[in-house]
This record gives sequence, structure tokens and C-alpha cells, in this order.
Amino acid sequence: MTTLSELNNCDLATFVDTLHGIYEHSPWIPQRVAMLRPFATANALKLALQSVVSAASDDEQLGLIRAHPELAGKAAIAGTLTEESTGEQARAGLNLCSAEEFATLQQLNTAYNQRFGFPFILAVKGPHGRGLSRAAIIETFARRLKNQAADEQAECLRQIHRIAELRLNALLGIEPQLGNTIMEWADVLAEWSDDDDGLTCAYLTPAHRKTAAQLLAWMTAAGMQAEIDAVGNVVGRYRSETPDAKTLITGSHYDTVCNGGKYDGREGILLAIAVVQQLHLRGEKLPFHLEVIGFAEEEGVRFKSTFLGSNAVIGAFDLALLDKADASGMTMRDALIVAGHDPRVIPAIGRNPDDLLGYVEVHIEQGPVLLERNLPVGIVTSIAGSSRYQVELTGVASHAGTTPMTMRRDAAAAAAEIVLMVERRCSQASSLVGTVGQLQVPHGSVNVIPGACRLSLDIRAADDATRDAAVAEVLRDIDAICARRGIEVQVERAVCAPAAPCAPWLMRQLAQATERAGVPAFELLSGAGHDAMAMARITDVAMLFTRCGNGGISHNPLETMTADDAEVSAQIFLDFLRHFQPPTR
Amino acid sequence: MTTLSELNNCDLATFVDTLHGIYEHSPWIPQRVAMLRPFATANALKLALQSVVSAASDDEQLGLIRAHPELAGKAAIAGTLTEESTGEQARAGLNLCSAEEFATLQQLNTAYNQRFGFPFILAVKGPHGRGLSRAAIIETFARRLKNQAADEQAECLRQIHRIAELRLNALLGIEPQLGNTIMEWADVLAEWSDDDDGLTCAYLTPAHRKTAAQLLAWMTAAGMQAEIDAVGNVVGRYRSETPDAKTLITGSHYDTVCNGGKYDGREGILLAIAVVQQLHLRGEKLPFHLEVIGFAEEEGVRFKSTFLGSNAVIGAFDLALLDKADASGMTMRDALIVAGHDPRVIPAIGRNPDDLLGYVEVHIEQGPVLLERNLPVGIVTSIAGSSRYQVELTGVASHAGTTPMTMRRDAAAAAAEIVLMVERRCSQASSLVGTVGQLQVPHGSVNVIPGACRLSLDIRAADDATRDAAVAEVLRDIDAICARRGIEVQVERAVCAPAAPCAPWLMRQLAQATERAGVPAFELLSGAGHDAMAMARITDVAMLFTRCGNGGISHNPLETMTADDAEVSAQIFLDFLRHFQPPTR
Repeated sequence: MTTLSELNNCDLATFVDTLHGIYEHSPWIPQRVAMLRPFATANALKLALQSVVSAASDDEQLGLIRAHPELAGKAAIAGTLTEESTGEQARAGLNLCSAEEFATLQQLNTAYNQRFGFPFILAVKGPHGRGLSRAAIIETFARRLKNQAADEQAECLRQIHRIAELRLNALLGIEPQLGNTIMEWADVLAEWSDDDDGLTCAYLTPAHRKTAAQLLAWMTAAGMQAEIDAVGNVVGRYRSETPDAKTLITGSHYDTVCNGGKYDGREGILLAIAVVQQLHLRGEKLPFHLEVIGFAEEEGVRFKSTFLGSNAVIGAFDLALLDKADASGMTMRDALIVAGHDPRVIPAIGRNPDDLLGYVEVHIEQGPVLLERNLPVGIVTSIAGSSRYQVELTGVASHAGTTPMTMRRDAAAAAAEIVLMVERRCSQASSLVGTVGQLQVPHGSVNVIPGACRLSLDIRAADDATRDAAVAEVLRDIDAICARRGIEVQVERAVCAPAAPCAPWLMRQLAQATERAGVPAFELLSGAGHDAMAMARITDVAMLFTRCGNGGISHNPLETMTADDAEVSAQIFLDFLRHFQPPTR
Repeated sequence: MTTLSELNNCDLATFVDTLHGIYEHSPWIPQRVAMLRPFATANALKLALQSVVSAASDDEQLGLIRAHPELAGKAAIAGTLTEESTGEQARAGLNLCSAEEFATLQQLNTAYNQRFGFPFILAVKGPHGRGLSRAAIIETFARRLKNQAADEQAECLRQIHRIAELRLNALLGIEPQLGNTIMEWADVLAEWSDDDDGLTCAYLTPAHRKTAAQLLAWMTAAGMQAEIDAVGNVVGRYRSETPDAKTLITGSHYDTVCNGGKYDGREGILLAIAVVQQLHLRGEKLPFHLEVIGFAEEEGVRFKSTFLGSNAVIGAFDLALLDKADASGMTMRDALIVAGHDPRVIPAIGRNPDDLLGYVEVHIEQGPVLLERNLPVGIVTSIAGSSRYQVELTGVASHAGTTPMTMRRDAAAAAAEIVLMVERRCSQASSLVGTVGQLQVPHGSVNVIPGACRLSLDIRAADDATRDAAVAEVLRDIDAICARRGIEVQVERAVCAPAAPCAPWLMRQLAQATERAGVPAFELLSGAGHDAMAMARITDVAMLFTRCGNGGISHNPLETMTADDAEVSAQIFLDFLRHFQPPTR
């Protein structure tokens, strides 16, 4: 055990010696990091270590990877595991492999080495730091074997950073308490699912109601006045001592998609409860009321209608939706009544905007941006607006052998031009994305020139002007491509949702808290929709994103985050609350 | 009535006056054609008239179209139909329209004029010259209303050429007797179908056996020794007076695809019978034996195996196929026995190549090349070889909103690049065609970046070197595109059939006969497979293509040709036989 202060003040040799084991057999890393002292926080030291690795040459990076032993593979048999790694792998139970598991790992090691030429690196302590199961290790190994080489090299470096992070925590005696709480609570909630496999928590199902009850209990235990409102939102109030203070709202949704991840939405509720619990335990009060809302519904799974919870809070719940039926024929009204709610009271949920200071939501990123930049958190600039279209192209189906290239009206070739045009056009602004997610030649035959092709279009940007300009150009180019190729085109607009820009004054205070944590305040766009999008209609909003592991995958059981990233996010949010200043208007 | 000789020798005023009515109110056409006199044949005169129209300005062409009255529309009501058109439309029964039909035509006229700005032109006498039904006229009108403007203008000009052709026939007293016979016989055969709607004639069905019996009867009546062989081929021999003469084979297949056209395959049999009948009636003998074969099977509908008839004739029938079952479970062996055949005798069908002079097949083009060039026939240079592949692309499915453009592994974008690359590469040689007929993102969602995309590849060329070079480059470029985009690719070869080049000495003799008919000898590739492809394995082959109407559509009930084009084809084939010279080797 040592302290950050000791590390900041010791001589180079001591520094390198102390940190030598953090990055396996690679003294060059602490050597270069030493120049960057002093570090204000452990986070800053971690990020500095990582940035030295990122800035290193490809050979140095590969050398770092190769300095690590194979996972319970040949190296283990030969007894050449380093002490650190051997200990960690043993704690992960890898010394208790069955013969079959050992054989599988050996095969994976061989295949992996043949494919990539470096050993498979995995932080076997996992995102919680409590250790991965052998089954999870083997599953991850098999999955990553299919990665592209460059991706996999980057993933190995990220796993090395995670190993180093855990070793540095041990060295400095850091325990991510808030992060651990968030991770454990998310695991508890993930036990309640509408399905036997995976996590599905749709609006007002038994799993959903159990989840609500648990959130209510945790909120109450954390010192909040809590209740479940008429739409199913779980609302906890951490009241200020100033009775007529305004209210800052935080939270996110607790429903999930089908077979979803356990952090999407829930992180933002659990993190806020953990932070309030911390304040409550210390007897700290805030100069404003803090409201933590677990929104009942955001994903739209059961009734094909999204944002039910946040729309009720902003007073925009559409009562006509009560007549909508789920797949089994039960109406939303009946589902509410069965769950003990009075749907007639829903309109009364709407908040008075004059009472509000704003809305700040913490959410897992659901994408790869923070992961690729080695940053635990980021500050959202805007929730992208979205324009969606269905495009139907009609050419002339004809014989693939008898129709010369110059006489074709190939609907798929027109579609191909459109796909590449969308890709090119939507690469022209940093906040812009454009996707053709559906693409199909209906009843296509290998020897028939496509007479028809259908495709979808999804264009999003941080601001409406950028998106609208791209959409207009894309639609114009579709017409031009089709005119040139003699293709008939029908374009139908499916969705047009405006962007919700985040409030600069809230973003600034989040950025300051982030920097105080020793983390650069990196800004990014939210391409996905969030409850903050609805809340933005009545108050200023901001969002803090937490890094998403496994390549940024979301809406999937593989969605993951680390306890350390949850900890950083919670500490930033706590610090943000403590330093919160209402806007001067 | 006048003669071609009179037209060749009269003064300009008489020429223009005589031909003035051929192209409606457009004396400029005979004026310009007069300079091109003399014409060796009526075909040459027809083609000269057409080429003057083709070379005219767009305004002149539109003027020619607008000189025609609307079809039973406003012009008819206003009494402004020209005498010719009125008479023709009346003969087509358009003066007998029901009120409902008249209203439909009026609506179509209005919609058509709004869309194209010129009147709808249709040669109401139709491809036979006997007149189209009112239902067929209305159906054609509705179908052509969906055409692209440029296509429809060209189609109107083609219909004007057809109207002019029929008027010129009447003026010169031309009766396409062979052509009419071929068209009528094709209509007779089209009555026998496996389905109630449309024409389906699969191997050894009752419809197929009736068709064979009818062909046998026509062959016998035309003076041939005819029989149905053990595989179901109908074989007629028009024997030479020289007993040890070699044999020239002609013919095509009499089976059809499901819901196919009535000329595909059958034209080549019926034309040969009509030509032999002509020789027989005149008592003309040939210095070689002529064998006309109606091949029993080429399309592969019933037993998913193609070229059964021609493979038997070349001694390459695969006896293992006898065990193949159709959809109802009946084996090919049982189907043959039920039809009265002895499958054991099939191997004896194989011809001795030493006895053969060659194989010449007449076939409808099944594509738009001759139609677009205003040519009734063309000489095939080669039957294209074909390479087919299935391509499977694997990228990374991720959130369409949260994944920046630069971090994507979009399988559909890679597929789009491949589609355009195939199109570009296969436009580099005139005989080359390349088609992506199947293209699909499996389970695509509008808001998910495609993680997978499947596509098919069909590349054909007149010669194997051209095709192989294109295939190699396309496969290399697929790899390059996928490597650059980080996409995994699996390519599976499905088909690789070599090209069958036509014999230059046979092509030359076909070309000479074509030119003697007053038609330029235009060469083109056959992109589709034909019995000649199998025959090429034992003897020299050549093919004459007849123009295919309706945009070149085939394998479809809309497949069509005119009696005049059938006549030209038959006359060329007859002349070819009369002038036939064996190769000097």
C-alpha cells in the first residue's frame, strides 16, 4: 500500500519500482508517466498510464501484450506464469478447470495465437472486480476469437488497462464503494425478468412491479420520501431544508428492451440513489430539492409507445394510449388498474416547469465512443433528432444473361448507390450519422436483374439544422440517382423527431465536476433517445454518459460497464450536486 | 397494290405519294428514304424507313407520334381519326366498346397524356396481324402507362414501325405465310398446359405428351420420317437422296418454364417444320440429311435437371438422374415408363459426331438487344458461360444512433460497394454481364447498423477468358473492399459453366443468308443457355435469334414476337439450307 502523494513525490527509481508490476514487465510505462507528475487524483494517474500506452509504438504495444502469459494455456503448464498473473488467474478459479474446460482453453489459445499472433488477454477479475466464472471466460474467449485483428489488439490493451486499474486500486487501497453498490443493485434487479432467459422488463408486468417495489425500498432506505405514481414511476424526494426551494430532477427508466442489458436506464436511477444515500449517511443537505425518478417506461416494448413515464412527468401523457392493447389483448388501462393504479390521476403527475431547476440524467453510453477514447465518462452535448424513411425502388426485372449492362434498370444497383451516398453525406459532420439498416431485393433470384429493392433510412444529428440539411440532400440525391438510372422511387417518412440540445450551463457544471475528478471533460452526442429528450420540453437538461464495455454493445445481454466507471460517474454526479449553482437569468 | 420494283424506279413524287400513308401524315419519311433506293427486298425498305425515323430529331419523332390519333379517345369522338387509323381501330373492334370499356380507355388516355404528353400508340392488329382483343388492348395500355418516359417514347415508335410494316405488307401484297404458320402452331401448342392459367409444360406431363404427339404429326405431314425417342425428343428426318450424306441438326426444346412464353424453344422447332414443309411441297431435296429435333426437356422444371433432351442426343445423359423424384415423389424412371418409354434405351440415342455437319438453332432472343436496334434477327456469336457465387458478409451490428460513421463495420455498405464494383467491372467488355440478383440484410432493423448482408453474383461472357478475368478481379476487389471496411467475407462458388462459342463457318453462312434477305447481319451474345450449348460438345453449332417484343421479356406470358419477324427468320433459315456448304477442313 502506498499513497498518491507518495507516488507524486518519490524519486524516479522508486516510482518505477512501485508501479513496475502494474503493467506486466513493462517498466517503460511508469518511466514515461513519471514525467507527467504530479497527479491530482488516482483517476488522472490511471489515464496518464493509459495515454502512455496509447502513444506508444505498435511494437511497444505488441510487446506489452506479449509480456502477458497465455490464459491457463501452455505457459501455465510450463510453470512460467508471472506471480501477479498466476495469482489473479488462480483467484478466477482457472486452477480448478475440469479436463474438458482445460482442453477447450488450450484449443482456444492455439486458434487465437494462430489468428492474431499474440496471447489472449482478459481481466479475469471482470467488471465487478469479483472474478469471472470459468464459463464466462471461455464464452468471452470464443467470442473475441471472431474479432478483427486491429480490434482485438485494441481490446487486449483495454483489458490490460483494466488489469492495471485493479492492481492500482489494490496498491492505493481504493475501493469503488458507490460503483460496487450500483453494480450489485443492478444485478439484483436483473433477477426479475418476464422471460426465463435474459432480462426483459416490460411495462407493468410482475417483474416490472417487483422492480418498482425494490427501487421504492432502496429510495426510502437512502433517506428519501418515495412513492410510486399513477403511471408507475418510482419517485424519491431528497428534500432541501429550504421548503420553497426549486427542484432538480435526475433519474432514468427501469423498463428494458427484450433480452436487454442491466445498466441501460437503471444505472441512472441506482447511481442517484447511491449518491443520495451517501449524502444522507453524512447528514448532508442540498440547497434545492433533489428528485430521483425511476421512469416506468421508455423503451416501448409492451404497448409500442415510448416515453410513457417521462411524458406523464412533463404533463404530456396521451390518454388515448390507455386504449392501446398489448400482444395478449390487454389494454394499458386494464394493465394499470391490475397494478393498482388509477389512470384518471395520470394528468395530475405533470410538473410545473416554474418549480424546476433542470433535469440531469446519467446513462450508459450504448456505443463505442468513450471505450475507443479510453475515457470513463463523457458529457452529452445533445440528444440527436432522428428522421426515418422507407424507400421503395422500382426498376425492370429482366434476364441476368440476356440484358446488356447498358440496358438495365437495376433497382439494387440504385439502392447500392444510395447506401454509399448516405454513408458519404453523413460522414460530413461530426454529430451526423446515417444508416441504411434494412436493404432487400424482394424475391431476388441469382439470374434475374432486381426489378425492386426496399431500403430504410435513419438520419440523426445533434442539431436539427444539420440533420435537416443532410436529409434534404440525401432525398435530392436519391431522386437524382433514380432519375439517372431510370428507376421509380417512392419515399415515405416514418419518423421525424427534433433534437434535444443540452443546456450549456448544466453541461459546464458537469464538465467542471468531471475535471475535478481528474478526467478530461469530453463531449459527445447521444445518438439514442433518452428520457431527457421528453424532459427537455419543460426544463433544461444535461446528461453524463458512462463508458460501455464489450465494443459498446447495448440492448443486448453483453452490455457491460465496470464498477470503477460507475464509481467515477457517481463521484462526478455527487460533486456536481455539491457544487450546483442555479443559472443566473 | 404496287411492287417493290415500281417503288424502286418511280419518280420522287410518286414514291412519296405511294408511301405517304405508311407513316401517318409524315411525308418527310418517304422523302428521305427515296434517296436510299433501290431496295433489294421489302425487308430492306422497311428497315430503311425505320432508320430514317431513328435518325430524325426528337421533335420530328414526337411530331410523328402526335400525328397519330388517340386510341378511341377524344380524337375519335371529335371525328378526326385518319382513314387508315379509323379503319384499323374499327377492325380491332374498338368501335364495339362497351360503355365501361370506353370509359376505361378515356381514363387511360387522360392519364397517359398527362404523364407523357403524347398519344398512346398501339398497333392494334397485334403481332399476328389478326387484331388484338379489346381486353388485351386495355391491359397493354395500363401496363405501358407505368413505363419510363424515354422507354415509352421508343415503344410508341416501335408500334408505329409495326403499323407501317402491316400497311407496307398490304401495299406490296406481302403475306408472311411461314411466319403465320409458326404463330398459329405456337398458339395450338400453348393450349396444352399443366396449369389452368398460363402455359406450363413440364417434362412428361400429359400436356407435354400431347405437345410431343402434335409435333410428331406436323413433322410427318411436312414430309419427314418422325419418331419420339426414349427420352421424349420428337425427331423428324428430312432425308437427302444421297444415303450416306451427313446430317445437319436443327431444333430446340418444347418444354417450358412455369407460366412461360409460347415461343421460347418452340419457335425453333416449328420454324424448322414449316421450312421443311415448304421444301417438301416444292419437292426440293437437300444434299444432306436434315434432322429436326424437338428436345423434350431443357428448362429443368420438373426434376431440377436441365438439358435432358440434348444431353441424350450427345450421349451424355446421366442415368443416375432416373432416380430423381419430382415434387410429388414420382421418379424420372417411372415418369418415362408411364409415358411409354424404355429408359434403358436412352444411351443408344447418342449420335456419332462423325455423322454430323453441325447444329443450328433458331430461338427467340429473350432479351431487348434486337428490339432496341430495330432488327428482326441477329446471329449469335457465343452462348455465354456463367459463374455464380453466393457471398456472405459479416460486419458488426450496432446502434444506428450511437455509433459514429468512422467506427462502423456496416455489412450493407460493403455490399453496396460490391454491387457497384460488379456493375462497373462488368461494363468493361461488350459481351460481359454481371448481376447481383439477390441482396439482403437478414432481419434488418431501421435503427441497427447491418451486421450481415448476403448477396449473389452471376457473371457471364461470350468467352471464358473474359469471364474468368472479370470473376478473378471481382473476387479480388470483394476481398479488398471487405479488408478495408473490416468486414469478414465468405464466398461460395455455385456454378461454373464454360462458354459455347459458335462456329465461324456456320455464323458466316447464316450472316450471308441474313444479308440476302435485306437485313444487316448483326451479331450478339446469348446470355441465356440453350440446347446448342449441349450440342456444342459433339459438333459445331450456330444460332439465329428472332426479335423479342414487349421490352424483351421472356419466361413470362408477355413474351411475344411478330409473324413478320418469324417469317424473316424462317426465310433466312430456308435460304441458309439452300446455300449450305460443309466446311472445308
